[in-house]
Amino acid sequence: MWGIELRRSGDISLTRQIYQSLKEQITRGYILSGEALPSTRELAKQLGVSRNTVCEAYEMLLAEGDVVSSQGSPTRVAEGVCVDLPPHAEPMETLTPSTPPIRANFQTGQPDLRHFPRFQWSQLLRKAYEEMPLDQFGYTGPEGLPKLREEIAAWLFRSKGLTVRSQDIFITAGATQALHLISEMLCHRAKGIIIEDPCHMGMLRVLRSKEVTVYPVPVDEHGLQTEQLEPWNAGAIYVTPSHQFPLGGILPANRRAVLIRFARENHLYIIEDDYDSEFRYCGEPVAPLYAMDPQRVIYVGTFSKILFPALRVGYAVLPPTLHRQWKYLRTHTDVQSPPFEQAALAEYLGSRKLDRHVQKMRRLYGERRKLLLSLLKDTFGTGWRPWGDAAGLHIALAFQGFYFDQEFIQRSKQAGIFCTSVDDHSICKGRHLDKLLLGYGHLEPDEIRKGISLLYELMNGHT
Amino acid sequence: MWGIELRRSGDISLTRQIYQSLKEQITRGYILSGEALPSTRELAKQLGVSRNTVCEAYEMLLAEGDVVSSQGSPTRVAEGVCVDLPPHAEPMETLTPSTPPIRANFQTGQPDLRHFPRFQWSQLLRKAYEEMPLDQFGYTGPEGLPKLREEIAAWLFRSKGLTVRSQDIFITAGATQALHLISEMLCHRAKGIIIEDPCHMGMLRVLRSKEVTVYPVPVDEHGLQTEQLEPWNAGAIYVTPSHQFPLGGILPANRRAVLIRFARENHLYIIEDDYDSEFRYCGEPVAPLYAMDPQRVIYVGTFSKILFPALRVGYAVLPPTLHRQWKYLRTHTDVQSPPFEQAALAEYLGSRKLDRHVQKMRRLYGERRKLLLSLLKDTFGTGWRPWGDAAGLHIALAFQGFYFDQEFIQRSKQAGIFCTSVDDHSICKGRHLDKLLLGYGHLEPDEIRKGISLLYELMNGHT
Repeated sequence: MWGIELRRSGDISLTRQIYQSLKEQITRGYILSGEALPSTRELAKQLGVSRNTVCEAYEMLLAEGDVVSSQGSPTRVAEGVCVDLPPHAEPMETLTPSTPPIRANFQTGQPDLRHFPRFQWSQLLRKAYEEMPLDQFGYTGPEGLPKLREEIAAWLFRSKGLTVRSQDIFITAGATQALHLISEMLCHRAKGIIIEDPCHMGMLRVLRSKEVTVYPVPVDEHGLQTEQLEPWNAGAIYVTPSHQFPLGGILPANRRAVLIRFARENHLYIIEDDYDSEFRYCGEPVAPLYAMDPQRVIYVGTFSKILFPALRVGYAVLPPTLHRQWKYLRTHTDVQSPPFEQAALAEYLGSRKLDRHVQKMRRLYGERRKLLLSLLKDTFGTGWRPWGDAAGLHIALAFQGFYFDQEFIQRSKQAGIFCTSVDDHSICKGRHLDKLLLGYGHLEPDEIRKGISLLYELMNGHT
Repeated sequence: MWGIELRRSGDISLTRQIYQSLKEQITRGYILSGEALPSTRELAKQLGVSRNTVCEAYEMLLAEGDVVSSQGSPTRVAEGVCVDLPPHAEPMETLTPSTPPIRANFQTGQPDLRHFPRFQWSQLLRKAYEEMPLDQFGYTGPEGLPKLREEIAAWLFRSKGLTVRSQDIFITAGATQALHLISEMLCHRAKGIIIEDPCHMGMLRVLRSKEVTVYPVPVDEHGLQTEQLEPWNAGAIYVTPSHQFPLGGILPANRRAVLIRFARENHLYIIEDDYDSEFRYCGEPVAPLYAMDPQRVIYVGTFSKILFPALRVGYAVLPPTLHRQWKYLRTHTDVQSPPFEQAALAEYLGSRKLDRHVQKMRRLYGERRKLLLSLLKDTFGTGWRPWGDAAGLHIALAFQGFYFDQEFIQRSKQAGIFCTSVDDHSICKGRHLDKLLLGYGHLEPDEIRKGISLLYELMNGHT
C-alpha cells in the first residue's frame, strides 16, 4: 500500500519506516508535487498501525517541507522537492596485485610491541580515567594537560639535560602532527623549507601535501652538509641532528654552530626532530640543538617509538613568539588531544617507570643491533659497512658493488622481504644507491637470523 | 674544577654532568678551539670519580664533534664550535584584564557532562584495552577501526534511516578535524567555499586559518537561502541542513533539491555538518541530505555532543572518489586516531547503550528547553520569539527593540553572564542584531532560572 512495506521486527520505528518510504517516493518523483497523500486515518487503517504513528510521520515530512498542509484540505506534496537519485556508484574493489606473504620484515621505525608493559599501562589508564576531574571530559584547551607538560619538562632535564619551561611544551597527536602544524605556521605565503636529503619520506609527504617548496641539502655521514646552505626563501630548516634519518649521523658541533648562525642571520626557525635518540647504544643521548638557542629551535619529540605508536602522544617545544599562533591552529585543526592517555603518560613519567622502560628497551635493541652486525659480518664477509651512529631502531648499510634501485625493492618484495633503500628516501635520486635500510628494533634474534639469510640469498641471486 | 660542580644525589648521572658542563663551556667560548682538555686520569682524580666516568663523557663530546682526539695527544676543543648563547627571553606573562566570575553560562554546544555514564564507559575502555590485539598498538591505518566503522553504519541506519557502506566511513579526531581535512582536499588551488551566514565561528576560523576564500550566503528561518546561490569559484558548500547553526532552521525539501542540483551543475561537493540533530524534541531526527546524493554529499558527524567532547571521535562519510586523497592527507596530518576510545565506542554502539543514552539525554534537554521557554515567557512577556526547530543544545531568540552588539556582550560579561549573539557568528554584520543565543543543554533547572533572571536584569538596566 502506497509502496510502504513495514517490518515490525526491525530496529526502525514504524513512524520512521512510513516517513522514509514516503520521503523516498517523493524525492524520486513517484508521488508528484501537488498530489495528495492519503488521510492519516486511511493510511493507518491500510497499514494496520495507530493513527498517531502516521500523524508523526506526516509531521516529520511537514517539518522538512516535503509536504504542505492547511486546515481542512489534504496533505499534499510540496513544489520542487523531486530529485532524481543518481545511480549508486559501483563499489570500488581495491584490486592490489597479489604480493607474497612477508617472510622478513625490515621496516624502519617499528618498536617491539611485545615488550611493552601492557598490564602496567592498563592500570595507569584506568587510574587516569577514574581520577579525571569531570570538567576535563569537556574542552580543556589546545596546549595539553599541565601535569603532562611538567613531567615532560622534568624528563627532558633528567634524560637530556635540557632546561625547558613546561609552558613552552605543547602536546600533540604524535610527531607528525607537530611537523604538520609547524609547517603550517612557518611555511605559508610562498615560504619554503630547507630539509635534509635523504630524509624521512613521511615528513617530505607532509610538506608535499601542503605544496610547500622544498630546498634539499645533501647529507653525509655526519648529517646535514651545512656548507651547502643557501639563503633560499624559506621559513624553516628541518633537521634530525641527534640521529640523522635515515643515514644515522650525529651533527658535529661545528656544523651545529654554523646551522644556528645561519638560522639567526636568515631569520629562520630550526625544527629539530628528535625521533629516537633515547636509543643510543654507546654513551648517553646526544645533547639537543635546542639547548643552543631556545628562541630559534623548535624541538619535536614523540612517545611512539618509546612506548607504542597507537598512543598518539608527541610534543613540540616552542618559543613564546609562536605560542599564540600554535594555539589558534591546533584549535582549528582538531581542537585538542584526548586527556586519558595524557594523564596516564604523566603518571608513567612521574613514577620513573618510563625511564626504566627506556633502559630496558635500549639494552634489548642494542643487543639486536650487535647480533645484526655480527650476522652481516658472518654472512656477507667484507664489502659492506654500517653508516652512522650506534643508535635507533634501524641501520643504514652500504654494500660495495650493489645497487638498491626500485627493481631490487620489487624483487625483494616478491621474495617476501620487506625493506627500503636510502634511495627511496632521497629527493635527489641516485646518490645513495649502494645503501639499504634495515629496521631491526622489532625483530627477535631468530627473525633477524632468518631475515639476513633471506637477504643474502636474494642479493646473491639464489631466489 | 674546570667549572664542573657535581651533584651526587641528583637524577643526572655523573658522566652526563661532566659532559654537559664541558659542552656548555665549549659552546659559550670559555674553553677555546684548540685548547686541550685535562687528561681523563687527571680530571677523574680532581673530581673524585672513576676514570671510566670521565672517559664516557669525553667520548660523548668526541661523538658530537665538540672535541678532537688523536692517538697520543691530548683531547682538544674542535674548530668552530663556539656559539654565543642568546639571552633567554623574558617569560611572557599573559596578563588578561580581570573578568568577574561567571554567574550564568549560556555557552552553546555544551553537553551536560554530569549525566555522562562514567562508570559504564570506564568498564568499556578497560575491556577495549585488554582485548586489543597487540598489532593495534602499532600503526593501523588512517581509516579507523573496522569494527567502529561498521557500528556507525548500523547506527546511522537505525537512527536516521541512512544506508551507508562502512568502507565509506572514516574516523576522525572530532568533527573539526573532518572539516579541516575536507577543506584541505576541496578548497586548495584558489578554490573557495560557499558557507551559511551566520554560521559556526569555529568552522569559519578553520577556513580563515587556511586563507580559503569564503562566499557567504544568507540564512533565514528555514536555513540557507538557496535562491541566492551563485556559481562562484568554489570547491564545496558547507551546510547544516538538519539544524542550522546558529539559527536553528531545517532546510526544506524544495531548497534541498535546489542545493543538490546546484552542486551537480557546478561540480561541487556538499559538506553536511550534522552536529547535534540527535537531539530533536518533536518527531524523529531529520533525514540527512546525504541520502539524496551519496556521491555528492560528504556527511560529517561527531560524538562530542552525544557523549563528551574530550572523547575526540567523529567521522566523515566520503564518496569513493575522495578515499585515496583523504587517506593520504590524514596519514600526513596526524597518522590516525588512538584505537582504545574507538573500540570502546564500537562496543557502546553495538550494545545499543548509546541509543539509550541519546534517548535519556534527549528527554533531559527537551525538558530544559521547555523550562527555558516558559521562564522566558514569564519573565519577558511578549516581545520575543524563538527561532528555528525544537532541537539541539541551544536556542536563538529574537527580542523586539533590542540590539545585541559588542557593547552588550561586553556588558553581559561584566555582569557575569556568558552568552553570544547571532551577530558574533555573522560574516555580514548587522543583519541579526536583535538575536541572542542561549546554550541550555548543560544547565540544571536552577541554573537556567538564575540565568534568565540575571539576563532580564541586565537587559532592563538593573545592573
